[in-house]
Amino acid sequence: MFSLRAMSLRGRCAERAHAVLRQGIATAPRLAQASPQLTIDTVNPAVVEMEYAVRGPILHRSMQLQAMLEEGADLPFSKIVQCNIGNPQALGQKPISFTRQVMSIVLNPGLLEHEGLFNDDVVARAKKYLGAMPSVGAYSDSSGVSIVREEVAGFITARDGHAANAADIFLTDGASSGVSRVMQILLRSPKDAVLTPIPQYPLYSGLAALLKGGLAPYYLDEEQGWGVTIDSLEGSIATAKDADQQVRALVVINPGNPTGQTLPAALMQDIIGLCLKHKLVLLADEVYQDNIFKSTPFTSFKKAWRDYERDVGVDDGTPGLQLISFHSTSKGFTGECGLRGGYFEAIGFEDAVLEQMVKMASITLCSSVTGQIATGLMINPPAEGDASWDQYKAERDGIQSSLKRRAELVCERLNALEGLTANASEGALYAFARIHLPDAVTAAAKEQGVEPDFLYTMRLLEETGVVMVPGSGFGQEEGTHHFRTTILPAEEDMEGVLDRIGVFHNDFLAGNLSYTIDLEQ
Amino acid sequence: MFSLRAMSLRGRCAERAHAVLRQGIATAPRLAQASPQLTIDTVNPAVVEMEYAVRGPILHRSMQLQAMLEEGADLPFSKIVQCNIGNPQALGQKPISFTRQVMSIVLNPGLLEHEGLFNDDVVARAKKYLGAMPSVGAYSDSSGVSIVREEVAGFITARDGHAANAADIFLTDGASSGVSRVMQILLRSPKDAVLTPIPQYPLYSGLAALLKGGLAPYYLDEEQGWGVTIDSLEGSIATAKDADQQVRALVVINPGNPTGQTLPAALMQDIIGLCLKHKLVLLADEVYQDNIFKSTPFTSFKKAWRDYERDVGVDDGTPGLQLISFHSTSKGFTGECGLRGGYFEAIGFEDAVLEQMVKMASITLCSSVTGQIATGLMINPPAEGDASWDQYKAERDGIQSSLKRRAELVCERLNALEGLTANASEGALYAFARIHLPDAVTAAAKEQGVEPDFLYTMRLLEETGVVMVPGSGFGQEEGTHHFRTTILPAEEDMEGVLDRIGVFHNDFLAGNLSYTIDLEQ
Repeated sequence: MFSLRAMSLRGRCAERAHAVLRQGIATAPRLAQASPQLTIDTVNPAVVEMEYAVRGPILHRSMQLQAMLEEGADLPFSKIVQCNIGNPQALGQKPISFTRQVMSIVLNPGLLEHEGLFNDDVVARAKKYLGAMPSVGAYSDSSGVSIVREEVAGFITARDGHAANAADIFLTDGASSGVSRVMQILLRSPKDAVLTPIPQYPLYSGLAALLKGGLAPYYLDEEQGWGVTIDSLEGSIATAKDADQQVRALVVINPGNPTGQTLPAALMQDIIGLCLKHKLVLLADEVYQDNIFKSTPFTSFKKAWRDYERDVGVDDGTPGLQLISFHSTSKGFTGECGLRGGYFEAIGFEDAVLEQMVKMASITLCSSVTGQIATGLMINPPAEGDASWDQYKAERDGIQSSLKRRAELVCERLNALEGLTANASEGALYAFARIHLPDAVTAAAKEQGVEPDFLYTMRLLEETGVVMVPGSGFGQEEGTHHFRTTILPAEEDMEGVLDRIGVFHNDFLAGNLSYTIDLEQ
Repeated sequence: MFSLRAMSLRGRCAERAHAVLRQGIATAPRLAQASPQLTIDTVNPAVVEMEYAVRGPILHRSMQLQAMLEEGADLPFSKIVQCNIGNPQALGQKPISFTRQVMSIVLNPGLLEHEGLFNDDVVARAKKYLGAMPSVGAYSDSSGVSIVREEVAGFITARDGHAANAADIFLTDGASSGVSRVMQILLRSPKDAVLTPIPQYPLYSGLAALLKGGLAPYYLDEEQGWGVTIDSLEGSIATAKDADQQVRALVVINPGNPTGQTLPAALMQDIIGLCLKHKLVLLADEVYQDNIFKSTPFTSFKKAWRDYERDVGVDDGTPGLQLISFHSTSKGFTGECGLRGGYFEAIGFEDAVLEQMVKMASITLCSSVTGQIATGLMINPPAEGDASWDQYKAERDGIQSSLKRRAELVCERLNALEGLTANASEGALYAFARIHLPDAVTAAAKEQGVEPDFLYTMRLLEETGVVMVPGSGFGQEEGTHHFRTTILPAEEDMEGVLDRIGVFHNDFLAGNLSYTIDLEQ
């Protein structure tokens, strides 16, 4: 019914990918190895099974092409444009100055000896962090430094109009490590399933495979702007139960990745009702909460639940909602991916369960303390009247308005092409476009043992230098084909990138370009 | 035969620990929860099973006492001294200035506009990193930025006199996340076992439990300075085989943690021979390679293996050694724990296996890029003649000589006490002392359902404010009792800390102090 696999040529691709990985680096001679302990045949099969399309063979091919460009090869394009991953600063987005100024002092307090280097509010914030920890070079508490957890609780309280507690906040290396930890706590066996949207950011399917747990897919409705429907959720729960699975949790990505939709508040209440009815832990992936391109502001599931609790109530003796909401410095308008900051807020759990979450964090001691500070700076930026306010506001508004323009431009230009349709990107950093491929393409793909949209995306890369992720990497309805592109190329490059995609697309669908890919190269 | 459990009171302690965790933070009212999805009874049992004594109930009790001190409580001590974890900067150790200066520029390149703030070599290094990546705020390649991987390869080549390849280097968040990834690749089921020293840093036993894999313990010989013996290893392999387990890997921690021994080169060759004979992946935990307190310099297993290969050779058709060596910015003399930098070097693996290691890294996208840069700065410090050399050398030598003095002082003072014996700390950051406890203590511990050294360590904390880890948290021979203390209190505090330990120890063994602990408080 659906495929999370981009292709069925793992072995060849793995070799090729590694050859790319090692390119340009002389390899020391290796001894003949008749039968060492660890070979690909004896690697934990759950690891081999795990797929993660955002960084798969197409990215590896792009690295190979990048190296060829650097060696002066004559290719149909002059640079690689990475639209495969939401990595804004890799495409020229500048960091927020306030964030980096504070961090430079926290790392090098000696800078405070020089007068006039920083605004007063920069110095004050840096001193606040420095005073609250022995050093950014010391391990923090497993869940993160108290001062940032307090800042996060303050942010959530202000955002939602409902109180949050620092004790419920866990600081993490990006959102991914928090999701990983929570999935590990939830999934006991393949009989435990997590309801996951299709299409989905493949972290969830990857972790379910790695942890030998189950996945219960539910389909987003492309015709309805990638909407979630309660019917689809109920159907997936019933299917999982028929397969003797216990559905333990529901993943909702809002704004959607790869699909870009945002959930209406009324639907969020229905989803909460469904979670209460079936006693599901709600995993709210809300990392794109600051990337909203329509006029309705973001509503968190925490707010939706507290409103529900207040307005609808729950029956006596009914458990309240168990909710975990994830956030990350990597997204929003700050785009601080490399700093690996993030948090999750967990509510509705007994203390003994929270203690297990702390223990899971403690085994790797703590998350990056620089990432923790980046998290504090993201959710507690300069306020109006502060010395850094004007610059902060200009930087923030500049990035946000540019992202909105680019989101609209990408969707408009893609929809103008014959054989491409894309729902509006209401939020997040992507467009997820449906490709209506001629039979010749699907036949050529089948012959080569790859998914049709993998073939499209690989050929797009080879002709234009633009790196995207095929829809098959996120899962999709059988017989449909998509690609995900970020909206992140710099504004001055965007028209050119879209032109190249358009020319390729028309030529490819018209049969003017080869449908053959060489996976051995 | 041995116990990796500090105690058998998980439930009560978990509650208490969490109460401590939440201390001082007002908790929003919770709804009655008749039977939510996730309770302690339905958490993945592998998570519950996992133990990690370095951050267990004694640390939590210390946090509680710290809060009491801050509230002005009248306790027998005026401050908490954390000797439970190798966290130098938490106890006042200053970071290396060069490291932090470079990092402040990399985070805030605007500092380059100000003349005269930094030495030329600081600026040059910062520009080198800035030129090699789009931004420290961009995701790097999954295995880390090339420039640092090249620096690490250069460091290993110079250290060992044998070539290393950047393609074999994986940058990680500290060493722990690398160990976690490798264990996940190795352990397919409880039938797969990893040979692990007892006593051991409990990351290995914790991960084996979490990943539902097997552990094959081998005992270090306390009488022989915590030596590894081939007989003991062969015996453990035979025992595992009798239990129908496949022994896949051997963990060697050198210098030892918690035990502080360093391996002689001849023994390392024997260990390599054993790994070749039994086809074991050698996991070399070498994070303390820069913490050596005796005159013989550190020998890496990579060097030992390349020497073996050259001098002894391997039979045609015999697989070469599969070796993974771990390192971390958290240890050495830099002690940059909070920055979460580290790497592992993997040699002897086919490309398809290395590709799985890359994929494992890719699911959380990349390690902290600030941590990656900290790793480069650790292994590629200023060279003689550079502008920052004199300051760097003074800082490095100051820390190293002080650590050596403290290591010697701790062992000398502990051995002077009646009923305490400690082997010399040849390396790492710890002393692991045997406590010869009177029967009254073991009886009191048994009555309270805790290990005798847990009782000792908890009472030590309550009487002196000194936080240690009981030997039972690392595993030990049945009937023996130990504690691990770091050697990290500042030199000016060290005599005082040792005085307090001595007074407590004598009083405790003489029966002048209570043997009762209150785990409900």
